[in-house]
Amino acid sequence: MMEICVCCDVTGRQLERVARAADGFTLMRAAPDQPCNAAIVFGNPAPEIVGRNSRLRWLQLESVGFGEYARLDWTRTGAVVTNLAGFFAEPVAETALAGILALYRGVDRLTRLKAEQRWLGDPLRRELRLLRGAHVVLYGYGAINRRLEELLVPFGCSVTPFGKRHAVERLDAALPAADIVVCAAPATPATNGFFDAARFARLQAGAVFCNLGRGSLVDEEALAAALEANRLAGAVIDVTKDEPLPAGHRFWTCPNLILSQHSGGGTRDEMDRKVDVFLANLVRFRSGAPLADIVDFSRGY
Amino acid sequence: MMEICVCCDVTGRQLERVARAADGFTLMRAAPDQPCNAAIVFGNPAPEIVGRNSRLRWLQLESVGFGEYARLDWTRTGAVVTNLAGFFAEPVAETALAGILALYRGVDRLTRLKAEQRWLGDPLRRELRLLRGAHVVLYGYGAINRRLEELLVPFGCSVTPFGKRHAVERLDAALPAADIVVCAAPATPATNGFFDAARFARLQAGAVFCNLGRGSLVDEEALAAALEANRLAGAVIDVTKDEPLPAGHRFWTCPNLILSQHSGGGTRDEMDRKVDVFLANLVRFRSGAPLADIVDFSRGY
Repeated sequence: MMEICVCCDVTGRQLERVARAADGFTLMRAAPDQPCNAAIVFGNPAPEIVGRNSRLRWLQLESVGFGEYARLDWTRTGAVVTNLAGFFAEPVAETALAGILALYRGVDRLTRLKAEQRWLGDPLRRELRLLRGAHVVLYGYGAINRRLEELLVPFGCSVTPFGKRHAVERLDAALPAADIVVCAAPATPATNGFFDAARFARLQAGAVFCNLGRGSLVDEEALAAALEANRLAGAVIDVTKDEPLPAGHRFWTCPNLILSQHSGGGTRDEMDRKVDVFLANLVRFRSGAPLADIVDFSRGY
Repeated sequence: MMEICVCCDVTGRQLERVARAADGFTLMRAAPDQPCNAAIVFGNPAPEIVGRNSRLRWLQLESVGFGEYARLDWTRTGAVVTNLAGFFAEPVAETALAGILALYRGVDRLTRLKAEQRWLGDPLRRELRLLRGAHVVLYGYGAINRRLEELLVPFGCSVTPFGKRHAVERLDAALPAADIVVCAAPATPATNGFFDAARFARLQAGAVFCNLGRGSLVDEEALAAALEANRLAGAVIDVTKDEPLPAGHRFWTCPNLILSQHSGGGTRDEMDRKVDVFLANLVRFRSGAPLADIVDFSRGY
């Protein structure tokens, strides 16, 4: 009997839902770092575990990101990988706007003042900016940045999107005029270290930078330096190269950096919705229909 | 020669702009608590100073709020008062959305975690909510809440506005279904203490309350109790009864309360824009045209 291994952090109730839908399969659980040789895997096991799974036919990731699995030899296995494309667009776009507005309207500062029980009042007003009419550059034009663009419509922002069809020169030409740059591109060899010191230097003083993609896209030392020098007015960082962010990392003490600890995609009902996606794909798998959101190994997402 | 007294906190450059436009008037400055007997006053002097100004013909406030001047006998003086109606709609609406999104997406919590250099990561995700589809009740349907309503459009929120034409019963019937209640009504005898313990008790557990109007509209003890008991999920409070908020006030330690210290209307160029409004009205005054944004003493705003 074909095996399904659930290696994401489901509750008992959620596992029961999978069990009811998995009639005819052997259902098992494994932690992401435990060996697993099931034909169907739901979750994000460690890449070396996946590499050693000789029976794998279908891996349903509980992420959009595929970067950590890209180095495996997928052509040899013949397995299919599906991801959660679009799944996180609403929460991540809301977190991005929350972070941007927090920087523009001083919410991060106000939170710290409240903790100190300190009233600053009127002088605060002179530091606040309006999002209305800001110029926003969107690097990566997938589900997240398209949703963010929708949320920005009533602010009358001018938006310059950059997708994979656009030339890098066009982006570099747009950066000096940007009030806000939002990076929401996948981790691929082409995007690795894309936002480096030279690109941060192109941004105008007072610009805000957001990274909602993957930590590997950003030269973290260069960003930290720009924030510490107050050349950039702020940053909203959902993802970092190392997570948890290591003790002593400059981001912990950088001014005007909102660190959302990779919570941007989160919602209260997140795992229920992930189970929904897996079960809908399981119905397709059983009927032989094409699975939804298959990762293109040549693109890497 | 008729006198113009500037008693708001203008820079030298801003005062020069007024001087150039005030040709034919005697220009003077006074702090808000200094006696002033000018015919034209720009700023918010202490009410007792205004009450003693027997020559006052026109007071251009640098606020929308008129509450503190309402007790003066305006019919006797024959003076006209103009306010900054609509002036703060964009910044206050942006601060309101910043605060609401901060609560929904955990920005206030993340700011505190960063200060402690503490990584929480995944468990955070389970506490986050989406603004998309929330039910929002707007109490007061002037420039601020109308602008906020526009900003909420792409979130697909269902919005129930309450203006001065609506019956209180309709509001009370809507409160139990509200995810978010935004108070942006003026301080008048009718709105004094409007949000009291009984109204907070009508809100569903987990609701968010925002006050952008005046502190007098809210029973602060009742709100603090609801937050401390975690009956309400959060509050965005721009205005309080006493400002600065006194030491020992429960709001300083209330959980999930974003206290914006009456900065909601602030922008970097705020005073420049206030001078713009005054000078545009001064042109009208000189030509005998009706002034813009005259306060209706019978309504109190």
